[in-house]
Amino acid sequence: MTHFSFEKTGQDGKARTGVIRTPRGQIRTPAFMPVGTAATVKAMMPESVAATGADILLGNTYHLMLRPGAERIDRLGGLHKFMNWDKPILTDSGGFQVMSLASLRKLTEDGVTFKSHIDGSKHFLSPETSMEIQRLLGSDIVMCFDECPALPASDEVVAKSMRMSMRWAARWSRDAFGDRPGHALFGIQQGGVNKDLRGESAEALKAIGFEGYAVGGLAVGEGQEAMFGVLDDAPDMLPADKPRYLMGVGKPDDIVGAVKRGIDMMDCVLPSRSGRTGQAFTRHGVVNIKNARHADDPRPLDEKCNCPACSHYSRAYLNHVFRSQEMISGMLLTWHNLRYFQDIMQEMREAIATGTFEAWEQAFHAGRAQGDIEPL
Amino acid sequence: MTHFSFEKTGQDGKARTGVIRTPRGQIRTPAFMPVGTAATVKAMMPESVAATGADILLGNTYHLMLRPGAERIDRLGGLHKFMNWDKPILTDSGGFQVMSLASLRKLTEDGVTFKSHIDGSKHFLSPETSMEIQRLLGSDIVMCFDECPALPASDEVVAKSMRMSMRWAARWSRDAFGDRPGHALFGIQQGGVNKDLRGESAEALKAIGFEGYAVGGLAVGEGQEAMFGVLDDAPDMLPADKPRYLMGVGKPDDIVGAVKRGIDMMDCVLPSRSGRTGQAFTRHGVVNIKNARHADDPRPLDEKCNCPACSHYSRAYLNHVFRSQEMISGMLLTWHNLRYFQDIMQEMREAIATGTFEAWEQAFHAGRAQGDIEPL
Repeated sequence: MTHFSFEKTGQDGKARTGVIRTPRGQIRTPAFMPVGTAATVKAMMPESVAATGADILLGNTYHLMLRPGAERIDRLGGLHKFMNWDKPILTDSGGFQVMSLASLRKLTEDGVTFKSHIDGSKHFLSPETSMEIQRLLGSDIVMCFDECPALPASDEVVAKSMRMSMRWAARWSRDAFGDRPGHALFGIQQGGVNKDLRGESAEALKAIGFEGYAVGGLAVGEGQEAMFGVLDDAPDMLPADKPRYLMGVGKPDDIVGAVKRGIDMMDCVLPSRSGRTGQAFTRHGVVNIKNARHADDPRPLDEKCNCPACSHYSRAYLNHVFRSQEMISGMLLTWHNLRYFQDIMQEMREAIATGTFEAWEQAFHAGRAQGDIEPL
Repeated sequence: MTHFSFEKTGQDGKARTGVIRTPRGQIRTPAFMPVGTAATVKAMMPESVAATGADILLGNTYHLMLRPGAERIDRLGGLHKFMNWDKPILTDSGGFQVMSLASLRKLTEDGVTFKSHIDGSKHFLSPETSMEIQRLLGSDIVMCFDECPALPASDEVVAKSMRMSMRWAARWSRDAFGDRPGHALFGIQQGGVNKDLRGESAEALKAIGFEGYAVGGLAVGEGQEAMFGVLDDAPDMLPADKPRYLMGVGKPDDIVGAVKRGIDMMDCVLPSRSGRTGQAFTRHGVVNIKNARHADDPRPLDEKCNCPACSHYSRAYLNHVFRSQEMISGMLLTWHNLRYFQDIMQEMREAIATGTFEAWEQAFHAGRAQGDIEPL
């Protein structure tokens, strides 16, 4: 059995490229992880997600524990079999979504009691139960259960929250995870935008020891400038020989800026969610396909993209099926967006490997500054 | 250029098998045509529709003329290119849906004035404009514009309506269609459940001469027994050397009963619509996937079906994604249903070719009588 490992194969400035090896396959880094919230990447067949170039998916512990339930998924053979995805899966701890989706939350040192946003049923999530649920799901990369405030927040609030998360990581998460060869447990750095707190959190995590380290508590309202400010320092505080994962990020330029600063993994609902609301990401920025300018346009979204949406359909068709609320609209635009995000990752991996990341980044920004093609 | 032709290659009782040849490919008969209302078979990529075994799609003139508009589709290269489907397309005339969907209809000998159900805009549809719209769409098989009452209706109402449709077919449809090698115009028999009126209609159509003949005005509320009563006679009234098309039918047992009575082509939204509402058609009848009995069931919908839904997913997964209102629910169940319908057609074609239709039909009904597999 292959054990979980990370090998850095190239570096250009702070940007790194490498490979994470797991028994379920390799993850090329930097890696973008599509989000399969409820055991499906919305509007996509899993083989189509793989065809976009994704090596790994993210599953949401909060959603899956509520519906269909972790025990049920375990009885059915685990999340991979359940959702027909045999490559690696990373699951979050559930903590973030308890805070953003559930009602009647009560947070103590033991964990969080909350009511389901689906049916109002009462649940308890803690560092230990989160480990157990992620084990039942069969997750390849398990995240520590943590808690973080929305930003902006005072240093005092951020520090208090971070320290509880570090106590959770130390006392329960590592032990509760147990000895599971081929599976990885990632610690999550907190500390908001405060460099000292980020450092304190990193030291606490390193003292415990994890297979990977996440930069958490960002993309929660602080804006790109503040996020990049944190990322100028945070990755360096984490071990260079382990994967670094920036949670919940982001827009294409967020992703590029994060990779530039030493991040290896990211996830975000943006490409899939935007696909369902008629927003397409292209080399030239965002295209709102519902705009009337596209109604008679025979050109593809992006002539250089080889996804099905761009290979076989006009902007006029995409405009028509969006306006008609046809499911193929979300199917095609999600596919395109996921393909675009994966294309960026592939291009960055190649640029880092060949020491041309800076030139690639300039071309990336120049393409976006150019804007969408002119209307006909 | 291949011209439009029909060759009967086998017969068993009244059931026929054959092939329709068109410049865009062959249509094996008996054929079931999935419905691509608004330039998409809902929840399906066109290559997936082809993978289910469909040789031809149906497009709806009423929907397409209103949105995105026939002239627009023509400017964009026609419906095939627009929706990325290069096999044959049959379009209906729009008449049926004007009657069922539009408001403020005014019917005269000239045609129908109506208001769009989408935006209330005013439109006019007639035998001539329907021909023109279907020409702009690039339809391979064009249907005559006709009008029919819902059943039950008095003989007087049915006769009046049928005779107007026959006048339309004679005066305008055939001439307006013009000389279009490789394309076909189908006449539509009307007459409700009255055999004499059906005969009168058939004679009127044969006097004009068409590349194919539809049995219209059924599946409009008359019930299966009455429909089969009509089909005991109606196909025989139509030329044996041309395809016979039963419009808007139907449930699997309707289809089998129609083929048994000499029908070559059918269309229905049932497999795709049911797929989106959690109903799956199987050899053992209808499965309502939302039923709680499936929530923990690791078995496929139908172990003998090789569609993606049955090959890779449990009933438990299908139950979960339906309850979670995930798009993959409609995607998988529509695929399964379309595959099941095409499997029936393929089996019937083989049974007719080998003179075993009666035995096949008995097995078909026995499988349905058996009912769904027992809960675990």
